[in-house]
Amino acid sequence: MLPEFQQRAAELVDAGRLLYHMGMVPATSGNLSARLADNTLAITVSGRHKGRLAEHDIMPVDAAGHGLDGNRPSAETLLHVQIYNRFPDARCILHPHSVNATLLSLLAEGDIVLRDYEILKAFPGVNTHECEITVPVFANDQDISRLASVVEARMADTEDVLHGYLIRGHGFYTWGNSVEDALRHVEALEFLFDCEMRRKGVSPE
Amino acid sequence: MLPEFQQRAAELVDAGRLLYHMGMVPATSGNLSARLADNTLAITVSGRHKGRLAEHDIMPVDAAGHGLDGNRPSAETLLHVQIYNRFPDARCILHPHSVNATLLSLLAEGDIVLRDYEILKAFPGVNTHECEITVPVFANDQDISRLASVVEARMADTEDVLHGYLIRGHGFYTWGNSVEDALRHVEALEFLFDCEMRRKGVSPE
Amino acid sequence: MLPEFQQRAAELVDAGRLLYHMGMVPATSGNLSARLADNTLAITVSGRHKGRLAEHDIMPVDAAGHGLDGNRPSAETLLHVQIYNRFPDARCILHPHSVNATLLSLLAEGDIVLRDYEILKAFPGVNTHECEITVPVFANDQDISRLASVVEARMADTEDVLHGYLIRGHGFYTWGNSVEDALRHVEALEFLFDCEMRRKGVSPE
Amino acid sequence: MLPEFQQRAAELVDAGRLLYHMGMVPATSGNLSARLADNTLAITVSGRHKGRLAEHDIMPVDAAGHGLDGNRPSAETLLHVQIYNRFPDARCILHPHSVNATLLSLLAEGDIVLRDYEILKAFPGVNTHECEITVPVFANDQDISRLASVVEARMADTEDVLHGYLIRGHGFYTWGNSVEDALRHVEALEFLFDCEMRRKGVSPE
Repeated sequence: MLPEFQQRAAELVDAGRLLYHMGMVPATSGNLSARLADNTLAITVSGRHKGRLAEHDIMPVDAAGHGLDGNRPSAETLLHVQIYNRFPDARCILHPHSVNATLLSLLAEGDIVLRDYEILKAFPGVNTHECEITVPVFANDQDISRLASVVEARMADTEDVLHGYLIRGHGFYTWGNSVEDALRHVEALEFLFDCEMRRKGVSPE
Repeated sequence: MLPEFQQRAAELVDAGRLLYHMGMVPATSGNLSARLADNTLAITVSGRHKGRLAEHDIMPVDAAGHGLDGNRPSAETLLHVQIYNRFPDARCILHPHSVNATLLSLLAEGDIVLRDYEILKAFPGVNTHECEITVPVFANDQDISRLASVVEARMADTEDVLHGYLIRGHGFYTWGNSVEDALRHVEALEFLFDCEMRRKGVSPE
Repeated sequence: MLPEFQQRAAELVDAGRLLYHMGMVPATSGNLSARLADNTLAITVSGRHKGRLAEHDIMPVDAAGHGLDGNRPSAETLLHVQIYNRFPDARCILHPHSVNATLLSLLAEGDIVLRDYEILKAFPGVNTHECEITVPVFANDQDISRLASVVEARMADTEDVLHGYLIRGHGFYTWGNSVEDALRHVEALEFLFDCEMRRKGVSPE
Repeated sequence: MLPEFQQRAAELVDAGRLLYHMGMVPATSGNLSARLADNTLAITVSGRHKGRLAEHDIMPVDAAGHGLDGNRPSAETLLHVQIYNRFPDARCILHPHSVNATLLSLLAEGDIVLRDYEILKAFPGVNTHECEITVPVFANDQDISRLASVVEARMADTEDVLHGYLIRGHGFYTWGNSVEDALRHVEALEFLFDCEMRRKGVSPE
């Protein structure tokens, strides 16, 4: 049995490869993390290609997001920290950068509201298509600390159960209780974003 | 030679992987079954990822859909039972969950009627493109027993030879006399749904 | 060195797998052939899945299209015979069944005329994008002998150099001086059909 | 450790395979090169399939583009020479031929200007989405020497930092300080071209 860090790192390497084959981490976009039992995080080193990760591209950071091994963690580490603080059960966060998510975030005029799709049942606590799942869209901001505050303020202020969010022109964030769980949410959200985008391409009769 | 259950289970595992590579079973959507010589079914256990099935993710149920090994069968087992009862020759049922099928089912205002496509000859008994194949679209319903009754009522009442149906926002069902046969029908229907959806995206001149 | 039939059959098996991975031979659609030095043909047996061919799925037929080993050759064998008769240098014919080709053939109101694409240089004798390549579109017909006559009449009557044609709702035919050559023409035509179809989806400004 | 030419050739062979799997070098389109320490280039031989390159499909040319081993270099070698002259740090040039780039170049009425996309940070010196990246579109020309002069004149005359350009109906050029770098720019530009093309397909509300 591998130590916990190595185990999670191996799962994140595999997750990166899966996301790449789905076309969701072009160039060096995207980032991935897992939370360990001691509340430290395993997160991708800044600037690496997510489709060709090796274990040394995953590094440890503390619960506040400070690097613990001299490498520079993902520029968006504070967004991961915010999510882990807000959702005590979250054990993995994935941030893919798909064309569908990018376009939908640029075209949306407010939150995305998803309804009537059977696949909504992929999210915990959802047992019918007759529900509404809200996916907030935040303005992009290179000041990640400020962006994390905006995300936190929104999450603190809503009664919606959130399973992911979009950043304008910048892909989406989702999370789960394990790497497998978070990947399931990626597949479900990407499917839904694909559906929503394609509906926009249907010509008026 | 493997016993029949193991043989069918192995074929369903392979079919799941093929469907996943075609993008048709995102998250834990979809379900797959085969009918054995003794009329019991081999069907996917509830909640498993269809692209990464192992043989222990396939379980036996009786002809009425009751589990025989303590696992919980697919939530939609009764839809499989209805099809096997209605079509005595059916030996395999596949329920993929593609973007094309989902969108087409949401946009359709009644049955889908397919005509003038050479690939219609993929269905048994069809030997010309000059025919019409009807694909009914049913409203989605979390009460699967009730949904199965609606499907049965429609099938009992039609002279159309049906090869598959859509559930709104929820993918499609198709079947065949073997796993290979059912996969051929999946490929033909998905091709046709893709054609029909893309025609909706053609801008008026 | 393998005997010629086995060599060509192995190349056709590989070509089928490539076409399948490009999504161009769904269900049991499509067919493939090569012409041997003695003017007999190696052609796919009727009804096989082109993505999972084995060598025994390729059979010999004589120059008029009659089977030589007791198997039933592709239902469209006479279309292959017509092309080989018309083009003495043709050594391979591929008939893929892509969504783009199917849709374009259904939407076209006459021949497809391709111009201004650099990739037109993939065709023999073309050395500039400033040219026009005509791709005829024929009505589909289950009477293959009659359809072959229509194709022949058109080819006899034109000064256009043809590199392929579409059958309405039924994919396209192309050929070359080797299997590799014909595959290059498939890739070029599919690219062009994809471009032409997507241009139809661009919304008017 | 392999000699430098062999090392770069092996990287270009791999890059060709990656581009092929992304659908960006259909038929025999596209070409690839690397600059060595002695300022000679390793470049693809004319007319080869970029998805199935072997090392003997990569040949040496001098800094002016003259072949050094008797093979015929890519017909577009002078476009590579112009880029290497203009950008002293460039070590690799990739010219893919994607459907998105081809269509965008045909539909654009002037330069492509990209803004507000997070993925713009994939380019050197870009550290915010709040910027504009210009991608010039040049008319296609079979006289490559003349086309290279047009490209050079444009590059000499601009204050824009350029990371790539389009040729109408003919794909795009991009470069980087290593093969890996150039591949990252390919992935970023293709993602952006895909986004821009799909926005054109969104129906007016």
